[in-house]
Amino acid sequence: MPLINRLAVVGVGLIGGSLARILREKGEAGEIVGIGRGVANLQRAVELGVIDRYEQDIKKGVLAADMVFLATPVCTIADIVSEIAPVLQSGAIVTDGGSVKEEITQRCEQLLSGDKYFVGGHPIAGTEKSGVDASFSSLYKGKRCILTPTATTNARALAKVSRMWELAGSEVVLMDPGKHDKVLAAISHLPHMVAYSLVNAVGDYDGCDENILKYSAGGFRDFTRIASSDPVMWRDIALQNRTALLAMMDFFAAHHAQLRALIAAADGEGLERFFKRSRDHRESII
Amino acid sequence: MPLINRLAVVGVGLIGGSLARILREKGEAGEIVGIGRGVANLQRAVELGVIDRYEQDIKKGVLAADMVFLATPVCTIADIVSEIAPVLQSGAIVTDGGSVKEEITQRCEQLLSGDKYFVGGHPIAGTEKSGVDASFSSLYKGKRCILTPTATTNARALAKVSRMWELAGSEVVLMDPGKHDKVLAAISHLPHMVAYSLVNAVGDYDGCDENILKYSAGGFRDFTRIASSDPVMWRDIALQNRTALLAMMDFFAAHHAQLRALIAAADGEGLERFFKRSRDHRESII
Repeated sequence: MPLINRLAVVGVGLIGGSLARILREKGEAGEIVGIGRGVANLQRAVELGVIDRYEQDIKKGVLAADMVFLATPVCTIADIVSEIAPVLQSGAIVTDGGSVKEEITQRCEQLLSGDKYFVGGHPIAGTEKSGVDASFSSLYKGKRCILTPTATTNARALAKVSRMWELAGSEVVLMDPGKHDKVLAAISHLPHMVAYSLVNAVGDYDGCDENILKYSAGGFRDFTRIASSDPVMWRDIALQNRTALLAMMDFFAAHHAQLRALIAAADGEGLERFFKRSRDHRESII
Repeated sequence: MPLINRLAVVGVGLIGGSLARILREKGEAGEIVGIGRGVANLQRAVELGVIDRYEQDIKKGVLAADMVFLATPVCTIADIVSEIAPVLQSGAIVTDGGSVKEEITQRCEQLLSGDKYFVGGHPIAGTEKSGVDASFSSLYKGKRCILTPTATTNARALAKVSRMWELAGSEVVLMDPGKHDKVLAAISHLPHMVAYSLVNAVGDYDGCDENILKYSAGGFRDFTRIASSDPVMWRDIALQNRTALLAMMDFFAAHHAQLRALIAAADGEGLERFFKRSRDHRESII
């Protein structure tokens, strides 16, 4: 018997499509219904065998689903849960893949009560690509998936969502939603803000009478790759995780200012220490 | 006839070793003498056929060389030129691979006069590895090499150094030394300072009761790679290019502060515009 009888995937792109693919491959989803706004993408998802059928009306799409996965922008998740709450079947579990969790988890757990359950989730996986054509069944293999249960999360719903991600190949980590947002602000959201700021600064620099970007080599190209991530998605993440992100940006700015001061003071020893510390931090993770 | 009769390479590591390898491969260097402090590395360079022989005494090493390539830390270059100037043969050309050019070019051109010539150079190539074992003959293929002639640079010396880099597979770009330092501050030195600051900030962050670096994924790992570059080398670069680098760090900090203000004001439209601009900058280079 599959883990899920009917899986509804809202947003059949890289994230939603990849989860559908792996659960299909493992025979762990009886039927998969895709829900979204773009008909062409949904038709393509049927062609590729990622979903069995699709609905554009989200309330129709989630009917009789025992698992609903929301792979839509973070700012839409609570509104979607609010919309589908009345039509979900008894025992239905709703989970998501949003990159920010505190507000979403709190609101969605309140919206679903009684015999319908919300479990906040965030698979730490992705590529710069989007759309169902970019999805693949091994996207989550060997990656972490953070779930953010609270004191009120239903234990059986949590166990089922955990099992789903384990079947997708991920290591499931449970984390307080507020802590999740701080951790992600530090290791993901801040680096993106820094990359965007850097690419804009270098791109705007006009002190050399030509487009200096053409001279960019290795290191800088890594930044431009990160800074080419979807502007709308990052707008939403920055706004949703505003508090934690602003705190991390200030923390970063203080370190940058400290380094600036060392250079201004021509403090060679201090600089060497500052640069060596980075290497030590790196060694703690590899 | 080879372009160079006797090539002296001071610092037989990734940069010096790779140039020696390609000129050897193309038959464009009659004899190659390696000069350095570490005997083990020099012996290894002989074993690998990168150099014909080595000297630890730099003055002996450069005797009768018609081309001397200095691949040593930027802060050592002018001192080395000062030391070897009296023993160089008539017509000898000295060039370098240092990442900062204004001060070096000015001092070295003054140190070599009459029938000995200096040409400032900077091949834009490299890897994170170092030592002669990391060198390979195609390192410079398809890369840019910036040469920084001034009003007093000898034209024949410049032509010969240009030819050397073209034979190594590089596109030679001529640039005013001051402009070089601004361009490099922007596209290379600033990104390194930003990466070091970011990795230190995230690594120092202790608001989560555990080492959050273990959750780091794609984007952040790119930063940690850059931030694991050699601390001593970057100390020297930061000090040598202090003026241009501080200006770029301030320019970057202003952009970062602007982004912070947009997030603090929850200005969704402004954020989207800020993020889109990065993508536009990127598209101008790929």
